[in-house]
Amino acid sequence: MAVYTDLSDEELAGLLAQYDLGQAVAFKGIAEGVENSNFLLETEAGRFILTIFEKRVERRDLPFFMTVMETLAEKGVPAPRPMRNRNGALFSEVRGKACTIITFLTGVSPKRPNVAQCRAVGAKLAEMHLGLRGLTQARPNALSVDAWPGLVEPRLELADKLRPGLAADVKADLAALAKAWPQGLPDGVIHADLFPDNTLFLGDEAKGLIDFYFACTDALAYDLAVCLNAWCFEPRGAFNLTKGQALIAGYESVRPLSGEERATLPVLARGAAMRFFATRLADWAETPAGALVRPKDPLEYADKLGFHRSAKSVADYGG
Amino acid sequence: MAVYTDLSDEELAGLLAQYDLGQAVAFKGIAEGVENSNFLLETEAGRFILTIFEKRVERRDLPFFMTVMETLAEKGVPAPRPMRNRNGALFSEVRGKACTIITFLTGVSPKRPNVAQCRAVGAKLAEMHLGLRGLTQARPNALSVDAWPGLVEPRLELADKLRPGLAADVKADLAALAKAWPQGLPDGVIHADLFPDNTLFLGDEAKGLIDFYFACTDALAYDLAVCLNAWCFEPRGAFNLTKGQALIAGYESVRPLSGEERATLPVLARGAAMRFFATRLADWAETPAGALVRPKDPLEYADKLGFHRSAKSVADYGG
Repeated sequence: MAVYTDLSDEELAGLLAQYDLGQAVAFKGIAEGVENSNFLLETEAGRFILTIFEKRVERRDLPFFMTVMETLAEKGVPAPRPMRNRNGALFSEVRGKACTIITFLTGVSPKRPNVAQCRAVGAKLAEMHLGLRGLTQARPNALSVDAWPGLVEPRLELADKLRPGLAADVKADLAALAKAWPQGLPDGVIHADLFPDNTLFLGDEAKGLIDFYFACTDALAYDLAVCLNAWCFEPRGAFNLTKGQALIAGYESVRPLSGEERATLPVLARGAAMRFFATRLADWAETPAGALVRPKDPLEYADKLGFHRSAKSVADYGG
Repeated sequence: MAVYTDLSDEELAGLLAQYDLGQAVAFKGIAEGVENSNFLLETEAGRFILTIFEKRVERRDLPFFMTVMETLAEKGVPAPRPMRNRNGALFSEVRGKACTIITFLTGVSPKRPNVAQCRAVGAKLAEMHLGLRGLTQARPNALSVDAWPGLVEPRLELADKLRPGLAADVKADLAALAKAWPQGLPDGVIHADLFPDNTLFLGDEAKGLIDFYFACTDALAYDLAVCLNAWCFEPRGAFNLTKGQALIAGYESVRPLSGEERATLPVLARGAAMRFFATRLADWAETPAGALVRPKDPLEYADKLGFHRSAKSVADYGG
């Protein structure tokens, strides 16, 4: 929730001169995203979000992210459409940083999604997967099973400090995941981070999927597993089976899961929980005590790992 | 630049149920203002800013601020109009805090105002003063001449640390201001904080005056003196006479200054510089080393005090 790069009105005018969007009529920093600087930008041509890329997002990945968004917008899946500048490029430069101007989508992010919203996001996730079939660009998932030990193992002591006994549990999880991680599932471009705050709703209708800066190529069912973690747990850590049923049914209303996808959903869900546990643990370790911005709690995902450890089949998730 | 109070979609719906503005169609935290939490709020009725009042703004002052804005909007001076809730009140409650919903104004805040923009803001300032004549509500200026010694004197050591010799200079300023501070000038409601980032422009046209949360009752010419400080100095501390001429001429195109106002403008400008030096020094003293949000530099206003010390008459400001 910060704006790292603020632009002067002259810098903004210089940037807009590279586009066919007219003059700025409104420009406000948005307290959104921890990775980039985002601005509400209204021009004579409409409303947009200007994103200036800060750390973490690699410049070489930008064409992939932008092409994903543009492809979805063209297929009618509600993702922001990146504007092309006068050179036809999907991103530009400002203050020596890469930036992009994407369409502003209406809608409000649900803080505590209801069952109908879980169903709706499941359907949109499947629409996204189908809409991106045939995309020739690819980007490996840098935060998959091979990356987790490197993030977690150097911080096992911290894990045990956060909750005594946790180090042994997650070591066992890592071993189990390395052994059981499925190969050869149907794959394609996945969002990989479709949390409620990366969606926009009007009532129960999903109006927007946003923040594609973790998108990558991986098993499609893994994306559903991320959503089961992000959408279907209650604040105190219990899995809500009704929400799980709705999410999976919504997904399958557009793209039915294969037998192998159903069979591997528990290990995929456990892996998805490990992915977020791992990065949250690393962020926690790197944040100085007393910092203004408190990192997200790794224990939320330690709790979810506990649920997945005991899950036996897709039925435990409502599938 | 922070959002201190984040609302869930249910809390927002509960708040909107108190208004005739329909449902939310967009809701984003804005990185603006260091005192309050601000959100872009679009509803079926249009676009608004939701402000949740945090520290510093006293609840008893809210009716005054809201009435000032509503009066200006009714008189056609471009200030945000606060929406009345179903009870007719200009502010509501959310999460135990006071909040208000005001209209969203288009425009971009100039980072380095040009001469035409100085002229335009001068004219708008005078329109504001005339538009608020006859307002029966009043609010004393808590940051005027009597308040400065209490803010500065306990921190003279810090001032000398920031710049050796500064403590003696500002002590002399405080004594001179206490002695020479004018009484009986034409007064009324003033903005008291009309910096460029509290204005919205389209090109050279002033489209909005915002952030009325320092508005108070004081000498009208003091408000112009604040603007001379905020609009007419160059980044390296030199007073730009052309901008001063434009600002004063713009003001006088709407409301000519009296002879006494012209004669006292140098001391008013020196006092205005002291007011911002004083609060910046206090903020600087209170901010722990290494804090994420760096306070504004008090020395910018120490430099301006230096200019005012040597100013002889209104002609030195372009009047």
